[in-house]
Amino acid sequence: MRNESPADLADGVLAGHRGALAKAITLTESTRLDHREESQEVMDRVLGATGKASRIGISGTPGVGKSTFIEAFGMELLERGHRVAVLAVDPSSQTTGGSILGDKTRMVDLNRSDHAFIRPSPSRGTLGGVTLRSRDAVLLCEAAGYDMVLVETVGVGQSETAVSRITDLFVLLIGPGGGDDLQGIKRGVMELADLIVVNKADGSMKDAAELTAESYRSALHLVRSKWAEPTEVITTSALDRSRVKTTTEDILRTWQRLSDDGSLTTLRQSQADHALATAITDLVQSTLEQDSWFSSNRQRLEDEVRAGRVSVTSAAAELSRRLLAGSSGQLP
Amino acid sequence: MRNESPADLADGVLAGHRGALAKAITLTESTRLDHREESQEVMDRVLGATGKASRIGISGTPGVGKSTFIEAFGMELLERGHRVAVLAVDPSSQTTGGSILGDKTRMVDLNRSDHAFIRPSPSRGTLGGVTLRSRDAVLLCEAAGYDMVLVETVGVGQSETAVSRITDLFVLLIGPGGGDDLQGIKRGVMELADLIVVNKADGSMKDAAELTAESYRSALHLVRSKWAEPTEVITTSALDRSRVKTTTEDILRTWQRLSDDGSLTTLRQSQADHALATAITDLVQSTLEQDSWFSSNRQRLEDEVRAGRVSVTSAAAELSRRLLAGSSGQLP
Repeated sequence: MRNESPADLADGVLAGHRGALAKAITLTESTRLDHREESQEVMDRVLGATGKASRIGISGTPGVGKSTFIEAFGMELLERGHRVAVLAVDPSSQTTGGSILGDKTRMVDLNRSDHAFIRPSPSRGTLGGVTLRSRDAVLLCEAAGYDMVLVETVGVGQSETAVSRITDLFVLLIGPGGGDDLQGIKRGVMELADLIVVNKADGSMKDAAELTAESYRSALHLVRSKWAEPTEVITTSALDRSRVKTTTEDILRTWQRLSDDGSLTTLRQSQADHALATAITDLVQSTLEQDSWFSSNRQRLEDEVRAGRVSVTSAAAELSRRLLAGSSGQLP
Repeated sequence: MRNESPADLADGVLAGHRGALAKAITLTESTRLDHREESQEVMDRVLGATGKASRIGISGTPGVGKSTFIEAFGMELLERGHRVAVLAVDPSSQTTGGSILGDKTRMVDLNRSDHAFIRPSPSRGTLGGVTLRSRDAVLLCEAAGYDMVLVETVGVGQSETAVSRITDLFVLLIGPGGGDDLQGIKRGVMELADLIVVNKADGSMKDAAELTAESYRSALHLVRSKWAEPTEVITTSALDRSRVKTTTEDILRTWQRLSDDGSLTTLRQSQADHALATAITDLVQSTLEQDSWFSSNRQRLEDEVRAGRVSVTSAAAELSRRLLAGSSGQLP
């Protein structure tokens, strides 16, 4: 799949080559041990050039006009001189077939620009693994000089949590609807949102969109916000250029506020801690799975547990003895 | 908290003493290392007497009449000569304050019987941890001679998955409602259900309940079922004794079908495998957290990662070196 060394690949990313960036992201998604080591070297080499972008998560249920909005928002950012990367996180795709996110054919104008980079969602792995790899993808985009990284996800609960763990700001995109649509959005997802944007506030839907925004504003009194300020609810139309301009300013202003008051620093630190914890769990897990002693004994103990001859806890203790010395739970 | 040895406690459970059963369950919920070892000994001692109950998960959003239904269903089971345990799983309670499940004051008649045991939900721990401890609680109830173990949960998505990992049969309880209420139940939860029961099919709600059942039947054509048979949708009224009797027969017949065709054996085996995997992860995690070398180095590496001087992957690799010898990822 590649001929470059990790050093060459890192240099290509740092020089802003889109091909190198795409290859480096593919490398982070590989489960092969040698690829993981190479990927780690690439990450170590580009690390100094990361951290400078605004990382913006955008979620919304299907039909809300997410691709259209992201394209319009992205084009507006390009006009303002930004370089824009669009990544997708879709942990549900492994089981349900998932929806196509980050689909280049749905963002034609954005995809044509030399200052934009669009990357579809990886389709494999655990939620924790997907989050870690997506975090690396965000960092790689930053290293390649993209100062606006948009992370797109579909609204299924778990994926919003994943996206909020790798972005600075979480924008929840919703459509105009009756009073009932509040029920469709889970409370936990609303709690994650920094900004709620009601799309399709145009034509015959305009009044409905304003009403929907108003019901969300009322509902948000009952919902915790991540920050001291209550979550703002605005309306927009991805089809109306001047409204997209205003919405872009709203999003950038919200990001700036979090940056200025120090919230962003705290948030990114806690995200780093969480990523480290996930990485440790993943590493231990994959090492165990590759160990032959562990595999064969696990098979035997699974049979014992299934047959009701050994308790789950005893079997786990026996299998972990390979990792942990002594019964006191102390490491060697 | 106890004076009995694990051996005494196990004997008490096996003799069907409710006090011993309650204490043994409390022991599984403790995070203290000595309690965990004692609990493991109790589990090993009672293991031979487990596996004989029908394990039935019951979920439903608040307001659907869950407690009333469980009490009526439990009383009907008692009349048929069963011994009934009611356990609650509520992994959400740690963050949201949660709802009170398995509340004895809401199941007065059931709680009065000598052949019933009601246990409220544990309130702490990770979802995986809660699931493991609840699994042990189910096994302890079986060892104490309860041949019907009902596991109650509130409908919040994650908890249904947890309950489906420790029960044979998953009953989703819903209320009568308009066409919109399908949206309130997540697709993933419907996929878990073996039987959907529309409650409150009485008085002025009767027609609405039948209509709701009909819309679920249509919707279920679009949803995968766990088994070859499509998921059955029935109506009931927890207030109408003859209807509860019929519903009880429906639930027992569904369980019997899964038992007869071998589905149950396969399901319980895969549940055992999953429980073992969770137990290993939990054990490794808690051992790491208690290790002083790990804690101090983790603090240092967290700072390095936060400052952007070390990548998450490199930090995880360094911390895991304590567990894993060599950089090849091979165990010692």
